[in-house]
Amino acid sequence: MAAKIITLTTDFGTGSPYVAEMKASVLSINRDAVVVDITHAIRPQDVRQAALVLETVTPRFPTGTIHLGVIDPGVGSDRALVCARIADHDYVVPDNGLLSLVTRRCPPQQVVKLQDTNYWNPSVANTFHGRDIMAPVAAHLSRGVPPSLLGPPHAQLVDLPWPEPERRGDLILGTVLHIDTFGNLITNLQQSDLQNMDPAAWEVSCCGQTCRAWVACYAEAAPQTLVALFGSSNRLEIAVTNGNAAQQLEAHDGDAVHLRPRGSPT
Amino acid sequence: MAAKIITLTTDFGTGSPYVAEMKASVLSINRDAVVVDITHAIRPQDVRQAALVLETVTPRFPTGTIHLGVIDPGVGSDRALVCARIADHDYVVPDNGLLSLVTRRCPPQQVVKLQDTNYWNPSVANTFHGRDIMAPVAAHLSRGVPPSLLGPPHAQLVDLPWPEPERRGDLILGTVLHIDTFGNLITNLQQSDLQNMDPAAWEVSCCGQTCRAWVACYAEAAPQTLVALFGSSNRLEIAVTNGNAAQQLEAHDGDAVHLRPRGSPT
Amino acid sequence: MAAKIITLTTDFGTGSPYVAEMKASVLSINRDAVVVDITHAIRPQDVRQAALVLETVTPRFPTGTIHLGVIDPGVGSDRALVCARIADHDYVVPDNGLLSLVTRRCPPQQVVKLQDTNYWNPSVANTFHGRDIMAPVAAHLSRGVPPSLLGPPHAQLVDLPWPEPERRGDLILGTVLHIDTFGNLITNLQQSDLQNMDPAAWEVSCCGQTCRAWVACYAEAAPQTLVALFGSSNRLEIAVTNGNAAQQLEAHDGDAVHLRPRGSPT
Repeated sequence: MAAKIITLTTDFGTGSPYVAEMKASVLSINRDAVVVDITHAIRPQDVRQAALVLETVTPRFPTGTIHLGVIDPGVGSDRALVCARIADHDYVVPDNGLLSLVTRRCPPQQVVKLQDTNYWNPSVANTFHGRDIMAPVAAHLSRGVPPSLLGPPHAQLVDLPWPEPERRGDLILGTVLHIDTFGNLITNLQQSDLQNMDPAAWEVSCCGQTCRAWVACYAEAAPQTLVALFGSSNRLEIAVTNGNAAQQLEAHDGDAVHLRPRGSPT
Repeated sequence: MAAKIITLTTDFGTGSPYVAEMKASVLSINRDAVVVDITHAIRPQDVRQAALVLETVTPRFPTGTIHLGVIDPGVGSDRALVCARIADHDYVVPDNGLLSLVTRRCPPQQVVKLQDTNYWNPSVANTFHGRDIMAPVAAHLSRGVPPSLLGPPHAQLVDLPWPEPERRGDLILGTVLHIDTFGNLITNLQQSDLQNMDPAAWEVSCCGQTCRAWVACYAEAAPQTLVALFGSSNRLEIAVTNGNAAQQLEAHDGDAVHLRPRGSPT
Repeated sequence: MAAKIITLTTDFGTGSPYVAEMKASVLSINRDAVVVDITHAIRPQDVRQAALVLETVTPRFPTGTIHLGVIDPGVGSDRALVCARIADHDYVVPDNGLLSLVTRRCPPQQVVKLQDTNYWNPSVANTFHGRDIMAPVAAHLSRGVPPSLLGPPHAQLVDLPWPEPERRGDLILGTVLHIDTFGNLITNLQQSDLQNMDPAAWEVSCCGQTCRAWVACYAEAAPQTLVALFGSSNRLEIAVTNGNAAQQLEAHDGDAVHLRPRGSPT
């Protein structure tokens, strides 16, 4: 059997030794697991940012991969911990909305509540279920334990509301979901939101500035040009060639993005 | 034989390519070693911060794990490099106090001085013994070389003084040892320092502010409440629910923490 | 056959989930690859900084290692992607100068242009060839695909000009190439540039300050002393013992370094 992959997504902070404590839990149970960091730079307690990362990154791993998501401000409270099988991946997470976007792509095949303490660390700290419950459960899954042994079915996952693209007269209104490490603004707009029209028919603006061009790749425009494009996750991105759009526009998550038919009065 | 785990703790900085130079040394000798980063975000030359990380994290790995600790301001000087077996883990470190806290949990079973150059890189830079001595030694250990071959016994490890909890009249005085990535203040106080009294009998204060409550987990209090709790390493922590205690209190490592019997005059 | 090592060097930013998207591409094709991060903290689009890292770090890995370098401001444009075999390592990179320093050590044995789409992801985003072309190609190489199958020979790699040490009368003029995470200034001067003279015969200065001493290791001088030494990559470094030379000198990449015969008039 090929070694199983276990991914980690947390808000522990890059460089935090808490990540290694989780890896110690995993490797104590399955030394052959292939452990891959997705990111530990989620803003503290920012479930929404992590939900977007999980939706963007996890489907790229092979089926059978196990994904740990530990953004868990409710640790120790009565929030549930679950294992959800979605598109043949297993997600081990607190049920706080982390899977809101993953489940829009694909409904869960199976969701169980983590309840059987045989699959947990012998001693469980109230403040670190990532280390003492979720990591050991992921390790047991990677050794072939089926989700059904982990606990009873869990009826309904928490689903966070999400800003949806909106039509207003001639305009399409979108939202900046995320700013990446290059300062690119990743929005909630996809090709399908453009009403089967050529993107070039739309003028894109954000924070009072209008993109000079639609491009297929960053280098298509001269350096420092504000451009719009569909990026590597198929979302509309606003970028500055060889520059930082977020800094130039002073943009933030949640800012509005406007698409206006080119040539229409402003 | 199961693959051996080698952990890395350094002050090289997250993102520093020096870490990969050490991994290259390890993998050149043992490609099957499972290499795990504990942290590279130790403040430059801060042996004490690293000593606390080693004490908190390393015992969670399986016995037989090899731990590299490269916080080595004395590199190239006459400070010794050692391999210390403690609780069936092997620590490969400069003898500068890095093991001061690990050895308080458990005295060393064996300590040798790294001396046999057969287990080092063929060429050794004066400024990077982590890459040219410690990493190759760890790799050889992971292939089954016994510590006794690495060099002669080393008599006495450097032991750094550490702030101890103190009793002053009715008060218990402690110290902030570390601020984690969430801004939680991790102190040198443990349950056993509370004189068999219910924690709730004590009022905890730091930097002139008093914790509103003792909790079992962060979410037990309303957001932005200053709370005290015993955290995942069994130490008294001061935290702000969904917030950052260090920022709110302007707290730093070394700050005093006071425990006063609840209801006593201030 | 021993598992192959694949290293990653990018400007994605520490903590960026884009790195994990590349790892997902690799592991989907070869789950046994040993993936090692060199750094993701290259400044955005800074090909020169990455070229120096590749030259310093990659030769330390075993022969047969595959190195991915994804600093790719021209992604999606007509810049070539190549696989270059150099000193029995395989480099998979955009042809934009990333290998300028590696090839000065050792000329390439073979360079091919990545062209056969059979070794790419089925769907290729215009803005992320690291994920969709270079990572899959590296994974196929790690499974034994020979470079000749990837595409036709590529005639000439882009070679960036690089500041060379310069002689001016009695002086030797060098340049700061890089500032490491400790604040040490790494220069373009090597032992061989010192005209077979004892380093102690030269006085080293930068940003208007003169090093107090030449040392063999940082700890040889008292704390906070400005010193010169040949560092772990055999380059002349300017450092402050237990301090940060870059901060103290307000030094930057590209700053001039002067070597003057000791005792000569300034």
